[in-house]
Amino acid sequence: MNYSIHIPSSTKKRVVIIGGGFGGIRLAKGLKNKGFQVVMLDRHNYHTFQPLLYQVATAGLEPDSIAGPLRKLLKHYKDFYFRMALVNRIVPEENMIDTTIGQLKYDYLVIAAGSKTNYFGQEKNFEKAFPLKQIPQALDLRSQILQNFEKAIMTHDKEERQSLMNFVIVGGGPTGVEVAGALGELKMHVLPNDYKELDFEKMSIYLIEAMPRLLNGMSDSAGEKSYDFLKRFNVTTKLGTMVKAFDGKSVQLDDGMVIPSQTLIWAAGVTGNLIDGLPDKVIANGRIMVDEFSKVNGYDNVFAIGDIAMQQTESYPKGHPMLAQVAMQQGSLLAKNLLRINKDKALIPFNYSDKGSMATIGRNKAVVDLKSVKFSGLFAWFVWMFIHLISIIGFRNKLVVFSNWLWNYFTYDRGTRLIIRPFVRKPKKKKQEEKVPVA
Amino acid sequence: MNYSIHIPSSTKKRVVIIGGGFGGIRLAKGLKNKGFQVVMLDRHNYHTFQPLLYQVATAGLEPDSIAGPLRKLLKHYKDFYFRMALVNRIVPEENMIDTTIGQLKYDYLVIAAGSKTNYFGQEKNFEKAFPLKQIPQALDLRSQILQNFEKAIMTHDKEERQSLMNFVIVGGGPTGVEVAGALGELKMHVLPNDYKELDFEKMSIYLIEAMPRLLNGMSDSAGEKSYDFLKRFNVTTKLGTMVKAFDGKSVQLDDGMVIPSQTLIWAAGVTGNLIDGLPDKVIANGRIMVDEFSKVNGYDNVFAIGDIAMQQTESYPKGHPMLAQVAMQQGSLLAKNLLRINKDKALIPFNYSDKGSMATIGRNKAVVDLKSVKFSGLFAWFVWMFIHLISIIGFRNKLVVFSNWLWNYFTYDRGTRLIIRPFVRKPKKKKQEEKVPVA
Repeated sequence: MNYSIHIPSSTKKRVVIIGGGFGGIRLAKGLKNKGFQVVMLDRHNYHTFQPLLYQVATAGLEPDSIAGPLRKLLKHYKDFYFRMALVNRIVPEENMIDTTIGQLKYDYLVIAAGSKTNYFGQEKNFEKAFPLKQIPQALDLRSQILQNFEKAIMTHDKEERQSLMNFVIVGGGPTGVEVAGALGELKMHVLPNDYKELDFEKMSIYLIEAMPRLLNGMSDSAGEKSYDFLKRFNVTTKLGTMVKAFDGKSVQLDDGMVIPSQTLIWAAGVTGNLIDGLPDKVIANGRIMVDEFSKVNGYDNVFAIGDIAMQQTESYPKGHPMLAQVAMQQGSLLAKNLLRINKDKALIPFNYSDKGSMATIGRNKAVVDLKSVKFSGLFAWFVWMFIHLISIIGFRNKLVVFSNWLWNYFTYDRGTRLIIRPFVRKPKKKKQEEKVPVA
Repeated sequence: MNYSIHIPSSTKKRVVIIGGGFGGIRLAKGLKNKGFQVVMLDRHNYHTFQPLLYQVATAGLEPDSIAGPLRKLLKHYKDFYFRMALVNRIVPEENMIDTTIGQLKYDYLVIAAGSKTNYFGQEKNFEKAFPLKQIPQALDLRSQILQNFEKAIMTHDKEERQSLMNFVIVGGGPTGVEVAGALGELKMHVLPNDYKELDFEKMSIYLIEAMPRLLNGMSDSAGEKSYDFLKRFNVTTKLGTMVKAFDGKSVQLDDGMVIPSQTLIWAAGVTGNLIDGLPDKVIANGRIMVDEFSKVNGYDNVFAIGDIAMQQTESYPKGHPMLAQVAMQQGSLLAKNLLRINKDKALIPFNYSDKGSMATIGRNKAVVDLKSVKFSGLFAWFVWMFIHLISIIGFRNKLVVFSNWLWNYFTYDRGTRLIIRPFVRKPKKKKQEEKVPVA
């Protein structure tokens, strides 16, 4: 092979960060020009602003506006190296990682590889479902939704048409609720203008949640409110119900109901995006067990932060929620702690400061839980938008997202209903392709 | 097959428009609610603003901002039908077209299928070249350019690295000049920040043109100016030179020179995007011969407009230039003439009113030829931007493009340097896939 990972040697200690998500970026920022050599690896050359993936999938935002090129983000950093690569294996005994472009030694390793879609061991039953964790997946879903209606207009077969116009979302967390609401808005304001020949009374959106409530991580009132809001957006929510299988044509539920649908959107959960090489004893529930300093149990120089890490505390016996907030706070603190290690200072333990959580259902409707106050409706919706807008990385992206939101709000429109790359179901192969970075 | 094209019958005469490009849209607009039933077919569900494709390919604009959803554009039209489909064959004897979703009768047929990349019979020698006629192609090129640098940073092989950093553009028309200039800007302002480890002195951009001048359709001064401007953007222009072959690794020129390069961008020309079924005698030079009413020779109810049509006149013995302007004027006039046919009025012959032409080379540099005045430089550049901005279809797109241009101008940046779908060379198959619409 002609390629290698090719990082110049340095007298500084080398921190290798796997993953350019919320945690990895915060960590890199905290280490900026502070006396470390920093290497970041990611399979993509951009950071994905995952909270808005659902808006890409539902034609509200262009993909490029929620992606931040990692090299651009980190261009003023000295002794910083980005490599677009996948990590095959961690070899902690040799302080080394093995990647698609060769091996690399580290002084400190930080695993910030995030999470991937969790099918709870039922991959086979749901291999035709649409996950929503990466931009290409959001684009595939966008194509699928639009292709469905292009087909619905042309089919003679009533049942076929119904299955094209039914959408099933699994999982009543924020992503599930947000996708369902966005589809509801498409049904109410956008699609009937585009497809005048179709009867949109017949477009149905089902949200399936196994628990007896929505937005389980949030307050009871948020759960109830979101249920009511979704109703107004024409979403049929089925609580306490599980999906059993999806064959690309219909969805089977555990209560015996069968929904003819060609589109099952999987928002039922995520699990750590694990990398081979760490012993089983540090893995629990698909995440890497870490102590209060984000240190992987049993190692001195291997850390994990964000979704992939699980620190058990009294308040969070199952680990912290898999949220951007946690990852960012862990990334910032770990940067400080790595500097303290260098200065032989005592480390600061991680204490999650929960700033609250929120979800939007659609136009003028959101739910917000803060520590001291919970509210919903129009004001919550503005808070949601404001927080997301300031969180998107890069001024250009903020500008473009804001332009789109203004446009969407005042016109009741969704401007990016484009089938740029038609979605074609392919058996497995595709996924692999997507995983392979440049080399 | 369960699908059909499925247009309700009507007492009105049916105009079938093949293609939602500049010509097709103008025609549809002219026929809006004027007593015809109008059916438009396109392989994409959006209109492509082709003049800015090169900015998508060079990470200056997001793809979605130069695409206008056709259904949205035409949503207030009565008795108007859009179908995402490919036309397999025209059967003029039966007033019928055969499409990927079935057959359709017409009273009037308008072929506005535009143009496709012209390899001048040398498809085999250039099957690894990057054409630039459609959005997915622009995205593939964007991925390729960025992947090249990600690879260049990781290769040990000096020659390999050089071939990754060399870019060859064939064709010194507006597209070729614009891509070359944009690559020059990437070299000067953007890429060196991203890839600090590479020596950008070694990035070379070659523009190869068979004629002894650039911008052949424009004035001599525009040709000379653009040559000078390109020099300032570090582009090596080779005039009077032809490319012989490209194997994915190096480009052979007819003067014996071999340029090691993995990226050959084909901007050497276009030819009519012909559809089977018309007799050979109406085809010349890959275009359909039409009279002064855009009527296809030998038929009363078959018309062709835009790039695909060739009307020979004294001023244009080889047909009009294949430009958006011509297509738009022909589309507008044909709408009027179809209304006149309905009223038994005499038809108005087409007279091309050349409003001038222009090309941009890069930051602050463009050339503009108007009838009475020719100018270049900063003012020309503003004129170029203004004209393009007002020509982009849709207010949302104008807003997003304008935001991007402001951003790019003041930051010397290109915000969308994203490898969303990594480009992987595949033998042929892919192209076919892309051609198949939904059904």
